[in-house]
Amino acid sequence: MEEYLARIAPADEAAMRAATERQLALTKPAGSLGVLEELSVRVAGMTGACPAAVPAPAVVTVFAADHGVHAQGVSPWPQEVTAAMLANFAAGGAAVNAFATNNRVDVRVVDVGVASDVAALDIVHAKVRPGTRDLSTEKALTEDEVLAAIGVGFELADALVRDGYRCLLTGDMGIANTTASAALIATFTGATAETVTGRGTGIDDAMLAHKTSVVRSALALHAVPASDPLDALSAYGGLEHAALAGYILGGAANKVPVILDGVIAGAAALVAQAFHPAAIEYCVAGHRSAEPGHAVALKALGLQPLVDLDLRLGEGTGAVLAYPILSCAVRALAEMATFESAGIASGESS
Amino acid sequence: MEEYLARIAPADEAAMRAATERQLALTKPAGSLGVLEELSVRVAGMTGACPAAVPAPAVVTVFAADHGVHAQGVSPWPQEVTAAMLANFAAGGAAVNAFATNNRVDVRVVDVGVASDVAALDIVHAKVRPGTRDLSTEKALTEDEVLAAIGVGFELADALVRDGYRCLLTGDMGIANTTASAALIATFTGATAETVTGRGTGIDDAMLAHKTSVVRSALALHAVPASDPLDALSAYGGLEHAALAGYILGGAANKVPVILDGVIAGAAALVAQAFHPAAIEYCVAGHRSAEPGHAVALKALGLQPLVDLDLRLGEGTGAVLAYPILSCAVRALAEMATFESAGIASGESS
Repeated sequence: MEEYLARIAPADEAAMRAATERQLALTKPAGSLGVLEELSVRVAGMTGACPAAVPAPAVVTVFAADHGVHAQGVSPWPQEVTAAMLANFAAGGAAVNAFATNNRVDVRVVDVGVASDVAALDIVHAKVRPGTRDLSTEKALTEDEVLAAIGVGFELADALVRDGYRCLLTGDMGIANTTASAALIATFTGATAETVTGRGTGIDDAMLAHKTSVVRSALALHAVPASDPLDALSAYGGLEHAALAGYILGGAANKVPVILDGVIAGAAALVAQAFHPAAIEYCVAGHRSAEPGHAVALKALGLQPLVDLDLRLGEGTGAVLAYPILSCAVRALAEMATFESAGIASGESS
Repeated sequence: MEEYLARIAPADEAAMRAATERQLALTKPAGSLGVLEELSVRVAGMTGACPAAVPAPAVVTVFAADHGVHAQGVSPWPQEVTAAMLANFAAGGAAVNAFATNNRVDVRVVDVGVASDVAALDIVHAKVRPGTRDLSTEKALTEDEVLAAIGVGFELADALVRDGYRCLLTGDMGIANTTASAALIATFTGATAETVTGRGTGIDDAMLAHKTSVVRSALALHAVPASDPLDALSAYGGLEHAALAGYILGGAANKVPVILDGVIAGAAALVAQAFHPAAIEYCVAGHRSAEPGHAVALKALGLQPLVDLDLRLGEGTGAVLAYPILSCAVRALAEMATFESAGIASGESS
């Protein structure tokens, strides 16, 4: 873990200053590209280059795992759906596959802790254990299991960048994973269980009340301080959250932008931030999920989502949807003419 | 004009019903793709097919023209910038070029009324007249000029669809065109000059107050009823607004989705709506511009923007940014597995 964290440094301020200056020289009114201008500056800082190269190719990694707390009845879906959806990802039939094809993003699927046997699937096999223990009655993971899952994410980020990828997108799959996310978000932001617990893929009022009380009791049972990300992952899981935190830290260590998907990624990013604050300088919020905890997480992370269209699916769909916006922002800074190069009277006449 | 309007029919309700039903069968929780589900249903209605084919290839057409009201000092930019930016578009150096390259959208640039001579540029030459007359003192255009400009847009839409394009994006360029847009939006929505007049590409408080008073006086001078789109274009112009209205009507006549850019397109869409209400059923709001009149226009059109990132550039940048979102929505409906085809227990267990 120390080795991982030692590789992370803050964004390059000189590149960010150069990018801010270059934005003013481009053939458009100053500020007229809105949020995309700041985005191009941030990517210059991440990569240490101005203008930064277009962050391509990109890959979305779907980390999949199961959750012991599923036994408490916090989701209307059977746990077997996690494994069934992995088969669907592998066959190219899920929403994330359609979005990724459309936006020229490659898809990797990783079993980091699915309860069922998915050995036959053509995916990355890195199962740490078959699902977490029930966070409502005991610690979901041992410290060794947490560190193993973080390692899966970090090492995969390293491998993907070695393979040429220049933008890492987060994805996730795991029935009941919004419950673990709620507990993690509450831990790191101090928000109440009521504020961060949502309907996930769609549950009724009674199940929501039950799910909220499960999160509330778990927070009281484990009472993890915000300063201890390792203990938080141990208390609540999940294996995909730990792997995602490692993947985010790995993206930061490799100085490539990481596009976060929804509430699961938001919870994992809070964990990564607790491990190393500079990690968030490499994160872009792909979208704002309809799940209430996500807005709480984004606020604590200081990130503004690029897409806000009521998605609440996960899988990485929101990150893949946002990827062309990020690459447009970077491409504009890299490829637009300046007033000087286009021979246009610089700036405004008045 | 009658010939054009006779070709427009409402969206296909049977295809929309089939798409709504198909959404429920896809391997995801019902509703979890949020706004994108409705979008896929709308495109099924536009094209009359369920699932609709991915709307590709796409083209953004930048209609450029100048405005006589520029003489009143409503913009800090000299009028010559319109022609200079046309050269920049033709050379591939503008923001819309960078975005279009990134998102695999072709770019067409049309001179429908630029004041300067741009004959040497490799663009579509369809100049109706060199800029409009000053809308603050007289009618900007004659009725024949309006009809000629509408024809440019409509015929071009026909030609583009004949050439194989399946999604038409709007773009625009014209120094001072937010002034004409404000007058048009006020005419069709009943909003006040104060509500719809904004800072365009960036003006100070004094110039904004002056611009607002120019719009207010023009509205009083011409007093066009909301029921008369031809007279509204004649009173206020611009030539690009008329061409865009024709282009939108042409997209509707050809049953292909039209992605609207910002406030100029919003004003033109209100004109198109006044000509034929069903035209708006073929429109998708690409983004919400920072220009205040745009939100007023979108509300009147009943359209929800896909991107909301403080852009206020025009050129079609907001439409190009939104194009992958639209195509992801359509592709998900077309390519995702169903619970049945993926062999997953349909829906939820409780």
